[in-house]
Amino acid sequence: MSDNQASRSVSVGPARLSTRDEDFNERLAALLDWESVSSAEIQQRVDEILHGVRHRGDEALLEYTRRFDRLDARDMGQLTLEATRLSSAFEQLGQAEREALVTAEQRIRDYHQRQCAGSWSWTDEDGTLLGQQVTPLDRVGVYVPGGKAAYPSSVLMNVVPARVAGVSEVVMVVPTPDGVINELVLAAAHVAGVDRVLTIGGAQAIAALAYGTESVPRVDKIVGPGNIYVATAKRAVFGLVGIDMIAGPSEILVISDGGTDPDWLAMDLFSQAEHDEDAQSILVSWDRHHLDAVEASIERLLPDMERRDIIAASLKRRGALIEVTDEKEAIELANRVAPEHLELSVEEPEAIVGDIRHAGAIFMGRYTAEVLGDYCAGPNHVLPTSGSARFSSPLGVYDFQKRSSLIQCSREGASRLGRVASVLARGESLTAHARSAENRIDEDH
Amino acid sequence: MSDNQASRSVSVGPARLSTRDEDFNERLAALLDWESVSSAEIQQRVDEILHGVRHRGDEALLEYTRRFDRLDARDMGQLTLEATRLSSAFEQLGQAEREALVTAEQRIRDYHQRQCAGSWSWTDEDGTLLGQQVTPLDRVGVYVPGGKAAYPSSVLMNVVPARVAGVSEVVMVVPTPDGVINELVLAAAHVAGVDRVLTIGGAQAIAALAYGTESVPRVDKIVGPGNIYVATAKRAVFGLVGIDMIAGPSEILVISDGGTDPDWLAMDLFSQAEHDEDAQSILVSWDRHHLDAVEASIERLLPDMERRDIIAASLKRRGALIEVTDEKEAIELANRVAPEHLELSVEEPEAIVGDIRHAGAIFMGRYTAEVLGDYCAGPNHVLPTSGSARFSSPLGVYDFQKRSSLIQCSREGASRLGRVASVLARGESLTAHARSAENRIDEDH
Repeated sequence: MSDNQASRSVSVGPARLSTRDEDFNERLAALLDWESVSSAEIQQRVDEILHGVRHRGDEALLEYTRRFDRLDARDMGQLTLEATRLSSAFEQLGQAEREALVTAEQRIRDYHQRQCAGSWSWTDEDGTLLGQQVTPLDRVGVYVPGGKAAYPSSVLMNVVPARVAGVSEVVMVVPTPDGVINELVLAAAHVAGVDRVLTIGGAQAIAALAYGTESVPRVDKIVGPGNIYVATAKRAVFGLVGIDMIAGPSEILVISDGGTDPDWLAMDLFSQAEHDEDAQSILVSWDRHHLDAVEASIERLLPDMERRDIIAASLKRRGALIEVTDEKEAIELANRVAPEHLELSVEEPEAIVGDIRHAGAIFMGRYTAEVLGDYCAGPNHVLPTSGSARFSSPLGVYDFQKRSSLIQCSREGASRLGRVASVLARGESLTAHARSAENRIDEDH
Repeated sequence: MSDNQASRSVSVGPARLSTRDEDFNERLAALLDWESVSSAEIQQRVDEILHGVRHRGDEALLEYTRRFDRLDARDMGQLTLEATRLSSAFEQLGQAEREALVTAEQRIRDYHQRQCAGSWSWTDEDGTLLGQQVTPLDRVGVYVPGGKAAYPSSVLMNVVPARVAGVSEVVMVVPTPDGVINELVLAAAHVAGVDRVLTIGGAQAIAALAYGTESVPRVDKIVGPGNIYVATAKRAVFGLVGIDMIAGPSEILVISDGGTDPDWLAMDLFSQAEHDEDAQSILVSWDRHHLDAVEASIERLLPDMERRDIIAASLKRRGALIEVTDEKEAIELANRVAPEHLELSVEEPEAIVGDIRHAGAIFMGRYTAEVLGDYCAGPNHVLPTSGSARFSSPLGVYDFQKRSSLIQCSREGASRLGRVASVLARGESLTAHARSAENRIDEDH
């Protein structure tokens, strides 16, 4: 083991890398490597649960909830929380928390209202109308994890866009193992406007939402994060219902020009790392001394953090301070990583934001801490992870709307288009297609 | 067996149903029932192929192509078609076909250009900028089936929206078993502007596009229809790359007020049924005599159809003529089925189109044959099947664009939002989140 490697392994903080390192590409690839793999055993258990709920409905749902959450309910009524239960959870919060929830909900709503797509159409020169009709989904299921990862902010982020889209009914499921209920989560459900809450979870809750049971209505789409059983079940029912992306661990990539307080940046990296040991925090700069200073801040601040063990494990396992040659190389690196969260902690972020091709959310300037986006800035905190920002978007109103193409041909249009369709259909040997078009051809047009 | 059932079973045409039948709900559910299920054996074979291409790259790709398509290529160069090969395929078509392809491409392009989303942002009262930056995907893979289901129109429908979105590179894969090439498909690739064509197919082509090999570049999203191996492979790589919906058999539901020529409607039903034996054609009307007339047209016209065996099998297996009490009930039925294609063959389609909540594409009026939408009206023919119009949309430019949230806080905004975020973060026991926000609070604001 070289001295360099030795020093890496005893550091409390993240790895130090440089794009000049010969093994940079391999080390970066190893750092980014992440794949959610369901073992054959998990797959089989999930398949059994899906099959059980699909064919035995409430009976199976009660049985699995008894087994996995140790809740002995006689019927689904006992696993249902009414609107008054949600509002009383809200009323019993302290004033600061009530105000913070309401403010966050308002800002999230304001932002998402700007995402609403409207129907559109136009008429071409033949008098043929073309367009799209935009409609909301009828019914949506929101999965909220129980236990330590139960975040009221996630309730707002998943429910508000559905509400803004005009979804008629939002059903929330949240497991309450041993009957332990998170009051903040219920309060957030009240503020966001959830229609009903069922205290079920795991693959059995996904099955109930996808297939419907005697007491759980079948939904059109299921959103929200969950453990590997929930993710495996969502993948299995994809197509029968819509699902959101399968989320990986949370990540941040910060580009700093060296002008931001190193303590601020250390805390920004911690805020991602404290989620869990697989979370990823990467700082990129072309200023080596600045990277040294942030490294020193990390070492100094870490011992005081409440979640220092998780932060230290996350930084050690998946964190990195990366030295690049210049700003251009930093931007290239960001596009290659396609991070969930990207902080541009530089003097003129507006000068480079247009060069960013792939990122879930972009936090521009020294004052824009990523955590503001987690709670209350307005944009959604459900973002593409593990490089999927290359092809997907933040959760939004568009995930709860869908489109129907509109075509209304005039007699002239039907004649003109019919001739083109006839040629192409015969080229594909689809003669019923050709004749269906030819029926509407008027020889005068 | 009752007389009624006996008459049903000897008819050449679709089943006759009425919403007044006691067993209507059960019969409708049985007709609509469709689920694409990969057997454990298919799943395992696909997993092996994915693993092979992922770890052995081109070598495995050549090996599988040799085994499944009986093409003995020495290297991937031999399985690559250059731009000149595509343009010569186009030049050698007859004039009518060349013009039809070009007209179709233009109309599809015109329509899709109206779907382009643009970046947007605004500044709130604290001076905080909020918005979304919209960018195209970098590279897209389009799967085109070989053999009988190789449709040039599908090449246009999958490639043009990607091009309109601004995707930099479009890679098309198409299997050519025994070296048999479909010249119309290559001509369509030329017209649509495909960058390169690889003559590979099956799960091995999906693996090459998702993981990349020495000679096949990794793409960001894979679209296009395929057989069960292709569908199973797409489901497996979902998340690593984006995919479009997994398509089921094609379907049409026609609502007729009785005023449309029964022969036209019979041919419209045939045009769907001729795709394959699992395709679904349903006619709904509140005029029983009209249903009788269409049934007679079906019996009279069917013997003359080139694909009469497929049409007859499809109509018998999955077709239906359904009598409803009135227009309102017809609309309810359409919303319940959420068909891929919906023809409103009525006098005033504009009066009821707003009541249609779920349909892939809506064809309004007697002159608007569904087949015009298959080829050249402009809207996309890649549409949600099997009821997935409840939650998904036609393929469009939006499938090849993605969004990044933008947040740029002013000092005032960082202070105000920081206070809210701090309260919520502490409520979630995430103190690094709270402190990251608190760092930017200026006590003067």
